[in-house]
Amino acid sequence: MTPLQIWALPGIAEIRPGDDLIGVLADAAGDTLADGDILVVTSKIVSKAEGRIVRAADREEAITAETVRVVASRVMPSGAVTRIVENRLGIVQAAAGVDASNTPEGTVLLLPEDPDTTARTLAAGLRARLGVQVGVLISDTMGRAWRDGQTDAAIGAGGVHVFEDLRGTTDAEGRPLAVTLPCVADELCAATDLVKGKSARTPVAVVRGRADLVGDLSLPGARTIARSIADDMFRQGTDEAYAAGFAAGRAAS
Amino acid sequence: MTPLQIWALPGIAEIRPGDDLIGVLADAAGDTLADGDILVVTSKIVSKAEGRIVRAADREEAITAETVRVVASRVMPSGAVTRIVENRLGIVQAAAGVDASNTPEGTVLLLPEDPDTTARTLAAGLRARLGVQVGVLISDTMGRAWRDGQTDAAIGAGGVHVFEDLRGTTDAEGRPLAVTLPCVADELCAATDLVKGKSARTPVAVVRGRADLVGDLSLPGARTIARSIADDMFRQGTDEAYAAGFAAGRAAS
Repeated sequence: MTPLQIWALPGIAEIRPGDDLIGVLADAAGDTLADGDILVVTSKIVSKAEGRIVRAADREEAITAETVRVVASRVMPSGAVTRIVENRLGIVQAAAGVDASNTPEGTVLLLPEDPDTTARTLAAGLRARLGVQVGVLISDTMGRAWRDGQTDAAIGAGGVHVFEDLRGTTDAEGRPLAVTLPCVADELCAATDLVKGKSARTPVAVVRGRADLVGDLSLPGARTIARSIADDMFRQGTDEAYAAGFAAGRAAS
Repeated sequence: MTPLQIWALPGIAEIRPGDDLIGVLADAAGDTLADGDILVVTSKIVSKAEGRIVRAADREEAITAETVRVVASRVMPSGAVTRIVENRLGIVQAAAGVDASNTPEGTVLLLPEDPDTTARTLAAGLRARLGVQVGVLISDTMGRAWRDGQTDAAIGAGGVHVFEDLRGTTDAEGRPLAVTLPCVADELCAATDLVKGKSARTPVAVVRGRADLVGDLSLPGARTIARSIADDMFRQGTDEAYAAGFAAGRAAS
């Protein structure tokens, strides 16, 4: 059995606003890519190419501007306020994904404008330029409810299945599978974080060995990963929901 | 740069209660393992070896018995009740991880008794038997708040760092990294789900290329991934917290 292989693309210099990412990725990849390869691109370099840079002094206002719904907030021991919000992309995440690491001094980065469209554009450009049928994911680093630490997950997808739909298939005993929808896009992003690192200049990694997940550019994007609010048992933080209930209970008496 | 490599171990037959997992893994691995390899073992085969099998008719009682705290519950359109609970291992998960896929007809499987201890025992046994310094993770499939689908995550760790602690390190600009604690154990489990599949008999995969994450058997286990309730902004579901607040508000009037 051929192993799944994952490696970081070397030789990507600091990205600046207006840079042509298709050209950067094509140059870094050279002739090393093959049909069915999946490139996982850290959101940070997409944001930089798009010029999504704001002054660090404007960070809180920037988070507010990116927010469509506050899910929960808490004052941390440091005095800083952590806000878990749904952003305009439908992603629930701390600080709306606004990040200060690996950005020029005194600045912070917003998430890319439209990562699904950008992922499709990058995939289309690389397919045309390199003549290989690749898929592209755009990843971001996220905390999780109930589990400490962070993992990388998908915020954009172009020409890659984000879910492996096993509904209707059966297990080794011939019974319908209970776990039915592995989020392979998030698993691919998590996997590539293992070779990218956080401080080195390796913002792009390649996964080879799951060509079955690469397909047409019209495949649904990462936006489809976001759970609808109707299905969301954690659409509001515990303290916020309790306070809302308390106020309603008092008013109802 | 040598790629990270991930492959499933072939040749693992159906596991039965009392089976010697160290022997099964050692036989399946043969002489293919090297120092620094990480084996990711699906919890299901650990549960089977431990005989953690109950009658499907007793599923709801089994979930209740595994639960130390109900976080949220909801009646689904099918009429079934989904319960998100903290189990005796400190893991917040749907149905306390009780699972009906790939089990004998009419039965369901509970999570392993003590996956951190088992992971250490497996790592110690494999190190002794094969003469290679491997690490072992035990994985389970989990849903996520806010994101549809499931990914695999770590519930047991033996001789593997569960976090890559970057606190105190700096980014390419020399500033402290804001994202400080990648949960590499969860990323490794997610990565191996890409080669394991859900219905095939490939419950074990190997990751080669992150030997730096393999260490002493006294390293902290996966239990340390669970967020403490004091830090948990989602320790109770939205509906549950609202209802508790409402009752308290009414009583306080």
